[in-house]
Amino acid sequence: MLTRIDHIGIACRDLDASVEFYRSTYGFEVAHVEVNEEQGVREAMLRVNGTDDGHATYLQLLEPVREDSPVAKFLARNGEGVHHVAFGTPDVAAETAAIGATGVRVLDSAPRAGSMGSRIAFLHPKDCGGVLTEIVQAAGAGEHGR
Amino acid sequence: MLTRIDHIGIACRDLDASVEFYRSTYGFEVAHVEVNEEQGVREAMLRVNGTDDGHATYLQLLEPVREDSPVAKFLARNGEGVHHVAFGTPDVAAETAAIGATGVRVLDSAPRAGSMGSRIAFLHPKDCGGVLTEIVQAAGAGEHGR
Repeated sequence: MLTRIDHIGIACRDLDASVEFYRSTYGFEVAHVEVNEEQGVREAMLRVNGTDDGHATYLQLLEPVREDSPVAKFLARNGEGVHHVAFGTPDVAAETAAIGATGVRVLDSAPRAGSMGSRIAFLHPKDCGGVLTEIVQAAGAGEHGR
Repeated sequence: MLTRIDHIGIACRDLDASVEFYRSTYGFEVAHVEVNEEQGVREAMLRVNGTDDGHATYLQLLEPVREDSPVAKFLARNGEGVHHVAFGTPDVAAETAAIGATGVRVLDSAPRAGSMGSRIAFLHPKDCGGVLTEIVQAAGAGEHGR
């Protein structure tokens, strides 16, 4: 079960400038910044609102830290803009298994590390109407306390 | 003040097929369908979660109903995928005036009709890091009861 929009991932060339744009234009503040070496990005999470499943929806600003990262390739092809949409679930492994059973290709055979201690898996955009889609289990969420 | 992600607008070629994908894959149900003649789209709103400002976040699936509509042009250029991101506010006129004062181009000089009786205005994507951005005041929201 998907219970929220967890975040919208936005690719940018200069994370600090993008953070400043969202702060000065809209008043959104940075809740968290980290580097995800596996994905080759530096990312900032800006909390927008709380959600009725007890979590929140964020903007995730993504700056590539190496040229061969997926986000660097996205920027070279498309320029800055929306990179992916992420839905939150209590159980990413069960949810992606159920989604995979409908015929959608799950790009991560096992969930991997996302922002703020979450566990995530991506779905193939060609199977999702052109939307690169991520499934997220927040840190501490789920039956197993992960 | 922006208090929520109101919706993510997703351009599609076949609204019924897209609705069926989101229903059968994720379990999202249609809350509302309408044709917006001014924008040249048929659109379905799928409610994802409630938000802590008393409203909700939706996916908005957009199918063009004429070839010269902005969404038809988007599809011809980019294919299916995320078209825009919309933030909710209690007062779209005041909010867009404040945003315009920061130097961002507001594409609608006065708010116009959005989904489900809302009032909306778009911001220029080149001023928003490549993200076509919409500001939304829900029906019944705001000081003036609009």
